[in-house]
Amino acid sequence: MIDLTFYKEYRQKLLALQYVGFVTSWDMQTEAPKDSAPMQAQMQGVLAEMEYKLTTDKAWQDEVERLYKVRNKLDKATRHEIVELKKSIDNTLKIPMEEYVEIQRVTAEGYPVYVQAKQTGDFNLFKPYLEKIIEFSKKQTKWLETEDKKGYDVLLDMYEPDYKQADYDAFFDVLREKLVPFVKKVASLPKLEDYSFANQQFPIEKQKEFCEYLRDVMCFDKNRGLMKESEHPFTSGWCNKDVRITNHYYLDNVASGIFSCIHETGHATYEAQVDDGLQGTFMSGGASLGLHESQSRFYENVIGRSYAFWKKHYPKLKKTFPKQLKDVSLDTFYKYINSVECSFIRVEADELTYPLHIMLRYQIEKEIISGQLSVDDIPARWNVLVEEYFGLKVPNDSLGVLQDVHWAYGNFGYFPTYALGSAIASQLYAEMSKSFNVEKSLKSGNTAKINGWLKKKIHQYGSSKYPKEIIKIATKGQFDPNYYVDYLIEKYSKIYNV
Amino acid sequence: MIDLTFYKEYRQKLLALQYVGFVTSWDMQTEAPKDSAPMQAQMQGVLAEMEYKLTTDKAWQDEVERLYKVRNKLDKATRHEIVELKKSIDNTLKIPMEEYVEIQRVTAEGYPVYVQAKQTGDFNLFKPYLEKIIEFSKKQTKWLETEDKKGYDVLLDMYEPDYKQADYDAFFDVLREKLVPFVKKVASLPKLEDYSFANQQFPIEKQKEFCEYLRDVMCFDKNRGLMKESEHPFTSGWCNKDVRITNHYYLDNVASGIFSCIHETGHATYEAQVDDGLQGTFMSGGASLGLHESQSRFYENVIGRSYAFWKKHYPKLKKTFPKQLKDVSLDTFYKYINSVECSFIRVEADELTYPLHIMLRYQIEKEIISGQLSVDDIPARWNVLVEEYFGLKVPNDSLGVLQDVHWAYGNFGYFPTYALGSAIASQLYAEMSKSFNVEKSLKSGNTAKINGWLKKKIHQYGSSKYPKEIIKIATKGQFDPNYYVDYLIEKYSKIYNV
Repeated sequence: MIDLTFYKEYRQKLLALQYVGFVTSWDMQTEAPKDSAPMQAQMQGVLAEMEYKLTTDKAWQDEVERLYKVRNKLDKATRHEIVELKKSIDNTLKIPMEEYVEIQRVTAEGYPVYVQAKQTGDFNLFKPYLEKIIEFSKKQTKWLETEDKKGYDVLLDMYEPDYKQADYDAFFDVLREKLVPFVKKVASLPKLEDYSFANQQFPIEKQKEFCEYLRDVMCFDKNRGLMKESEHPFTSGWCNKDVRITNHYYLDNVASGIFSCIHETGHATYEAQVDDGLQGTFMSGGASLGLHESQSRFYENVIGRSYAFWKKHYPKLKKTFPKQLKDVSLDTFYKYINSVECSFIRVEADELTYPLHIMLRYQIEKEIISGQLSVDDIPARWNVLVEEYFGLKVPNDSLGVLQDVHWAYGNFGYFPTYALGSAIASQLYAEMSKSFNVEKSLKSGNTAKINGWLKKKIHQYGSSKYPKEIIKIATKGQFDPNYYVDYLIEKYSKIYNV
Repeated sequence: MIDLTFYKEYRQKLLALQYVGFVTSWDMQTEAPKDSAPMQAQMQGVLAEMEYKLTTDKAWQDEVERLYKVRNKLDKATRHEIVELKKSIDNTLKIPMEEYVEIQRVTAEGYPVYVQAKQTGDFNLFKPYLEKIIEFSKKQTKWLETEDKKGYDVLLDMYEPDYKQADYDAFFDVLREKLVPFVKKVASLPKLEDYSFANQQFPIEKQKEFCEYLRDVMCFDKNRGLMKESEHPFTSGWCNKDVRITNHYYLDNVASGIFSCIHETGHATYEAQVDDGLQGTFMSGGASLGLHESQSRFYENVIGRSYAFWKKHYPKLKKTFPKQLKDVSLDTFYKYINSVECSFIRVEADELTYPLHIMLRYQIEKEIISGQLSVDDIPARWNVLVEEYFGLKVPNDSLGVLQDVHWAYGNFGYFPTYALGSAIASQLYAEMSKSFNVEKSLKSGNTAKINGWLKKKIHQYGSSKYPKEIIKIATKGQFDPNYYVDYLIEKYSKIYNV
C-alpha cells in the first residue's frame, strides 16, 4: 500500500488556492468595484507568489517524484493525476518566479483596461499590456520547449494535449478543402426570409427569464451554480457542486443571449456531471479545452439550433415576447437562428462560418509567436484576413482585434480548440444517434436523456483520462473531422436547399 | 532608521489572506450555490489553517517582537500597528490551532443551517452548531484571560478595547435610570396617526432604485463599492476602494430597506474615507465596532430619521411610490419613521426602544458565558426577557432568538457595541452642531458637508488610533452617555408632545 497521507493533505492546500483563484476572479469579472482593480491586482500578485511557492516546494516535488516512480502501483485515476502533476511541476520550474508573478499582476491590472479598450475601440490603450503578455508567451515557448515540441506547439499543448501545429494544420486543411467552398456558396445566397423581427427590442429582464427557463430545460441543478453577467460570457467551476456561468444580453439581439446561455450551460453541465469520487482532486474539471468545447457546442449547435428543440420551446419564447414574435413562425425562427452570413464577431457567428473565425485567429497566433507579426501590426493584419476570409472591412477594433478576451488573459494557443470542439461534437452526435433518437428525445421537454448519455460516455471521467482516451470510450474510435464536415453540409444543404 | 522590508513583505501576505477571506465570505453570503456549502467549508478550513500558520510563524513573531522593542523609534501609526499586532499574536498563540481551524469549519458549515433554521423557526436545527460555538467562546475566555480581564470581559474586549462588563453595566445603568421610564411612557401612548399606508406593497425593484438614490445622496462613490442582497444586511470592506454592503428588502415594509441602506452606507462611508496612506496596512478599517456603529447610527438615526432630511427627499420617495404615498404627508411620514413601539425584531426596532433589545442580548450573553444559562434554555430565557422588557409574547424563534446572525458567526461580546455606538453618535452630533448647522446643511441635497466633518474628525484615522483617542480628537472630551439620553428625550418629547 502506497502512503498518500502527505500527498492528500498537501493537495488540499493547492486546491484551496485554486478555489481562491476561482472566487476572486469570478468577483473581479462580475462585480468588483472599478476603483479596487489596482489593489486587487496587487493582492493577486501576492497570491500567485504563494501558489508558486507551494507548487514548487521541494517537499511537494519530492512527494510527486516519489509517487511518480511507483505510479504503476497506484489506482488508475491517481496514477493519471501524478503523471500530469509531474509534467506540470517540471513546466512550472522552468518558468522564473518573478516572471510568473509579474504576468499575473499584468493580466489582473490589464483586464479592466482591456474592457475599456474594447468599449472605446482603442487598441492603443491595451497595447502596452498585450505587448507584455505576448513577450511572456514567447518566452514561455523557450522555457518549456522539448525535443519534439517547439514554438507555437508548446502553447498549443497547454490547451489540448497531443495536438500540435501539424495536427491543426491538417484539421484545418480538411475544413478548407471540403467546407470552405460550401460556406462560400451558402453565404453568397440571399437571405431566405426577412429577419427584421430580430432587430426589435427584447427587454433584458425577459431575456434573463427565458434563459433561466432554458437552464431548467437543460436540467441544470440551480443549487449547483448560478448565472450572472459579464462583458464576455464564460463558465467557471471548482467542483461539481459549484459551476457558474455568465451571460451577456443585447437589447436588439435576443439570439445572442439565448445561445450563449445554452453554450455556457453546456460547459457547466460537463463539470456538474463529473463523478463525486473525483471531487477534492485535480481531476474534477473537464479533460481538455477541446473536449469542454465539444460539450458546449453540442448543446448550443447540435441540440440548441435543431428544429426539434425549437418545436418544443418556441411557444415559450413566443409567450415571453408576444409582441416581438407575433408574426414569426417556428419555420422562420429556425431559419433565422441558422442563417449563414459573414460577420465580424466570432461569438455571434453562425455555426457554418464560425470555423473561419478560428482559422483567422490560428493564423495570426502562428505569425505572432513565430515573430513574423509585431504587436503594432496585429490590428491591420486582422483586418486584412477578415477581408480575405469574409469580404468585410472592419470598421473599428471593437469589432475586430479587441473582440475576444483570450489574449488579455494570455491564452495563446486556446482558439483552435474551439474548432476542434465543434468537430468532436458532430462526431459525438453521430455516435449518440446510434443509441437513441436524439431529436425524438427532445420531445420530453428537457435534455435529461442526452445529459445521461454524455455523463456516462464523457462527463463522469472529469480529467482522470486524456481526451483521446475518452473519445475512444465514447466513439469506439478516434477523432475524425469528416463527421463535422458531413454534419454541416447535410444540415445546411437542407436549410438552403442547395 | 529601522528596517521594515521584511515586515512589509510579510504583511502583504497576511493582507492577501484577509482579502481572500473578504471575497470568499462575501461570495458565500450573497450568491454561492447552496450545494457548494460543504466543499466551501472544507476549503475555508484549509485557508484558516494557512492563515493561522502564517500568523504564528516564528519569523513573523520574531519580527513583530523586534519592532515592538524599538516601537518608540517608529512613526506613530506603525507603532500603533505593532502594539496591536503583538497583542493579537500573543492572543492567537493562546488558541490551539486545531480548535481555531475547527471553529472556522463549524461556522462556515453552520451558516446555511442557521439561515434555514431562521427561515423555518427551528432552533433545534441550529442548536448543535450553537453548542459548539458557545463551547469555543467559553474556552476562549480561559485561553485569553489576563490578570485584569476574565470571563465575559475577555470577549467584550475583542470588540471594543477598554470596555468591560463593569463599564457596560454602568452605561446601561444610566440608560435604565433615565431612559427606560421615558420609553415606557412613550410606548404606552396610542399611535399618533394611522400608518396603515406602510402595510401596502412597495415593489422591491422600486425600493432598490430609491436605495441607490440614497447612496448618491450620501455621496457614496459607487466605483468604490456595491450593494447586493442577503438574509441580514451587512457591510464588508478590505480597502478604501472596495467597501460593499448588502440590504434586505421586504415587500410590505419600505422603511426597513431604506434605513438598512442608510445604516450600511454609513458604515461603508467610514471605511471609504480612511486615509490613502493607511491602505495596504492593518489600519485601513474602522477603529472599533462601537465607533463603526456610531457612524452607521449617526447616518441612520440622527440624519436619516430627521425632519430636515425628509423635507428634502420625501418628494423623491413619493415620486417613486406615487400610488402608495398619494395621501401621506411629510409630517405623517416623519412621525411614522419615528413611531415608538415595542416589537420583536432588533433590526426593525425604532431608535428609542432599540437599546432595550441590546440590554436583553447583553444580559443573555452574560448568563451564557458565566455558565448560568444552558443552550437548551436560551430560547425560553429570551422569551422571558422579551416579555419583561417589552410586554410581548414571542410567537416563534424566527422572531426571537434566531433573528440575529451574530452568534452563528461566534460573535459573543459584539452586541453591546451597538448601544455604545448609538450613544457616541449623539455626542458627535452635539459636537458637529458647534461647527455648523447640520440640519441646514441637508438642504444642499446631500451629506457632503457632514461626510467632510466626519472624515476629518474620525474616518481618516482608520484604526491607526484607539477609539478613545479618536473620540477625544472629535469631541475634545470623553464618552458621556448623557448626550444620548438628552438627545433621545428631546427628540421624542417633541414628536410625542410629552
